Amino acid sequence: MTERIAVIPGDGIGHEVVPATLRVLDAVVEFEYDHVEAGDAVAERTGEPLPAETLEAVTNADATLFGATGETSADVILPLRDAVDSFVNIRPARTYPGVDAVQPETDLVILRENTEGVYAGMEDRLTEDVSTLTRLVTQSASRRLAEFACDYADSNGHDGFTIAHKNNVMRVTDGLFVDTIREVASERGVDADDAYMDAMATHLAMDPTQYDVIVCPNLAGDVLSDLAAGLVGGLGLLPSANVGSERGIFEPVHGCAPDIAGEGVANPAATIFSAAMLLDFLDYDDEAAAVRTAVETTLAEGPRTPDLGGNATTDEVADAVVDRLS
Amino acid sequence: MTERIAVIPGDGIGHEVVPATLRVLDAVVEFEYDHVEAGDAVAERTGEPLPAETLEAVTNADATLFGATGETSADVILPLRDAVDSFVNIRPARTYPGVDAVQPETDLVILRENTEGVYAGMEDRLTEDVSTLTRLVTQSASRRLAEFACDYADSNGHDGFTIAHKNNVMRVTDGLFVDTIREVASERGVDADDAYMDAMATHLAMDPTQYDVIVCPNLAGDVLSDLAAGLVGGLGLLPSANVGSERGIFEPVHGCAPDIAGEGVANPAATIFSAAMLLDFLDYDDEAAAVRTAVETTLAEGPRTPDLGGNATTDEVADAVVDRLS
Ligand SMILES: CC(C)[C@H](C(=O)O)[C@@H](O)C(=O)O
Ligand SMILES: CC(C)[C@H](C(=O)O)[C@@H](O)C(=O)O
Repeated sequence: MTERIAVIPGDGIGHEVVPATLRVLDAVVEFEYDHVEAGDAVAERTGEPLPAETLEAVTNADATLFGATGETSADVILPLRDAVDSFVNIRPARTYPGVDAVQPETDLVILRENTEGVYAGMEDRLTEDVSTLTRLVTQSASRRLAEFACDYADSNGHDGFTIAHKNNVMRVTDGLFVDTIREVASERGVDADDAYMDAMATHLAMDPTQYDVIVCPNLAGDVLSDLAAGLVGGLGLLPSANVGSERGIFEPVHGCAPDIAGEGVANPAATIFSAAMLLDFLDYDDEAAAVRTAVETTLAEGPRTPDLGGNATTDEVADAVVDRLS
Repeated sequence: MTERIAVIPGDGIGHEVVPATLRVLDAVVEFEYDHVEAGDAVAERTGEPLPAETLEAVTNADATLFGATGETSADVILPLRDAVDSFVNIRPARTYPGVDAVQPETDLVILRENTEGVYAGMEDRLTEDVSTLTRLVTQSASRRLAEFACDYADSNGHDGFTIAHKNNVMRVTDGLFVDTIREVASERGVDADDAYMDAMATHLAMDPTQYDVIVCPNLAGDVLSDLAAGLVGGLGLLPSANVGSERGIFEPVHGCAPDIAGEGVANPAATIFSAAMLLDFLDYDDEAAAVRTAVETTLAEGPRTPDLGGNATTDEVADAVVDRLS
């Protein structure tokens, strides 16, 4: 059976890095693609950043490759994450030979809760003066994340993971989060450490090697993964996977970069690495490994895009990756 | 009139860095001190981490010098911040000659909202599965913070500040926060930029020189200031001031460091810098400047505590600072 992949370039450099990535995918697997729109441009034209047919395409696809969107990002990506019931966002952050990094030894993965926390989005303006947001933490979502984290640690050769949280302040909600995850880890015989998310920010900046796998609530994952991106040389390299039990959405952590959009020099590495995560998800393990190796070799030996000090175009980088696959 | 200062060493290295700091203060101003207890040790003895007489001493003092507490920190510092109505937490983060730093050019100040956000602490376990926390953002607290930020920028020679937030997800609450602060800034003719807190984490890690003054909600300030601490060489150097309209609590950002407590080698710099902020607050501007210069010279020329690669004790560092004051 040929898997069906929804493809959403989005806005800005999404229209450069996604086509480049499809050429890399074409070199290893034959998929059936469903090209659909989302983001600022389609919103400007139709009033709707997430057209119904896009939502439908993603819901019917085995996996989605997502580029990047602009101002409307939250209106696009949050409903899409919901639509595929992606309960975890996997965000690996590591450095590569040939790429300058603030912390060159970084190699970690953030497993971010992807459905609740402050993202549950229940807000009210109660009076002229007062507004509130309801932060939601459930035992069931925490348990599901914990099961995933245990599987992830097991299958990637880690002894355990570190829970990032703020349960000294958010005693009930992050209390439930930490307690539930610790309980699952102990049932499963996996080591679970924990750290306050503020202290972890200090530790990450000074010595990220002390962490392998970090498990955290939604907003903590948002901030800590962007911090990790800063440590490894910028957002141009970080892929991510929004994973549900049956479907997934694979997207670079970077945005649509209006400042360089249209110039054809965006770094496609993060999107190609996201495609490698898509290949993993669909059990094309050998193909995923081959794509990763080809990108790593290209990062080390060139050609490189300007963000990494080179002067190659997006397409030249993609060509080099494709060449190295054959 | 002699000002009254409440002194809370707390736990662990608090009992080392606070007495050292008092010797430095004694060299420049004569205060009346009220020595009181808080933290794990007193909780163990009496069941109460924040005894009534401590709360009373802080409420009656012109200012409080606070060391560090352990497991009970949230039970101590959050009610104390409330008690003095400290609506802002000022957290400067900069590097010093002689101190290794991940980002040696860092020089910024975080102005953290200090009364609400997720710290408002309204939580419920609604069912076996579901827990909630109410995040509170008011126009009045945002306005008060904004007025302070404008004054701060003015009197410290900055054109403006950058608001860190997540108003694409927390649309109503961080929406109110950002809009209110932008409005005050525009009334006051102060420049107000803004950035998503996740993007700011990337930028801080890669190039903190793009920020001077950051204004943010409570939890964002907690995390971003610890990140900044990591960039400038660790928590050993960061002071903070919890400032209300009439009172203030001055505390190092670091904790009570049980791993080195009792050895007499804790770095007193963060607490002495906090005392300098206390002197500023009470309008001892010359004395504050003198203390800062004396600590900076000591950081550059030694003696230094082990965390900075030296082998001096806490007291030897304090002696050196006192010597340089005379
Ligand atoms: C666009 C935004 C809603 C999103 C998030 O906060 O999750 C982004 O920052 C991310 O991390 O994917
Ligand atoms: C101890 C804790 C409640 C506190 C906070 O979160 O504010 C601390 O981390 C700080 O930053 O002063």
